[in-house]
Amino acid sequence: MTSPDQPDFAKSGGLITAVTVDAATSEVLMVAFMNADAYARTLSTGLVHYWSRSRGKLWCKGETSGNVQRLVELRVDCDADAVVVRVDQTGPSCHEGFRSCFYRTVTPEGRFEVDAERLASPEEIYGTASAPDAGA
Amino acid sequence: MTSPDQPDFAKSGGLITAVTVDAATSEVLMVAFMNADAYARTLSTGLVHYWSRSRGKLWCKGETSGNVQRLVELRVDCDADAVVVRVDQTGPSCHEGFRSCFYRTVTPEGRFEVDAERLASPEEIYGTASAPDAGA
Repeated sequence: MTSPDQPDFAKSGGLITAVTVDAATSEVLMVAFMNADAYARTLSTGLVHYWSRSRGKLWCKGETSGNVQRLVELRVDCDADAVVVRVDQTGPSCHEGFRSCFYRTVTPEGRFEVDAERLASPEEIYGTASAPDAGA
Repeated sequence: MTSPDQPDFAKSGGLITAVTVDAATSEVLMVAFMNADAYARTLSTGLVHYWSRSRGKLWCKGETSGNVQRLVELRVDCDADAVVVRVDQTGPSCHEGFRSCFYRTVTPEGRFEVDAERLASPEEIYGTASAPDAGA
């Protein structure tokens, strides 16, 4: 049996970049980070895990909100320091209540403008004003 | 006139993560980084610029290969430390000659398997065995 290939965790202090996309529509939902443990657990459990830089801990997406991400496909880039995570996303992926974290367009003049629909308020998602699922 | 909004360059040492996607198909083409200068030049010229961490220099994608990326739309995420760059991509985006840098799937056993078609060899793109466009 061939041993698994490994992403290049050493390049950026133990972390690779994870770009999570909706498997059905290919919309980019969020950008976060995985350490080796988050990567291994994502593959072994089929539920997407990340490393939260701000909280310094492993994080199973949706563990607080219920808005889990079921793994459909994992893809790796040419230098193996980034992955595309194709998922079946339950509810909003963004702690702000939008389907995608990229809910704002940048105008030619450089202004950020919301052009997506908010599906839920953070309070509806978490029951408090805090947003414990945020933390990339 | 309202002044432009600014991404959070301070969070990660002057860089934001740029996820570049094909505007027509939404396929993720590559992940790279932008500093404030690369971000500003992308908006002002309509040609996508990055900061190459490995070469320590500003980089207009396609400046060597001719495989430029014309900006269609820029989107910014909730905490403004990542952008999605929707582009009209000329030729392969990957220095390995694939349309996307994510030309390998990760099997459930963790093995990397090429499942995309190579459009050109690096030699065909650059005329040498080196790949000066690589450098995220």
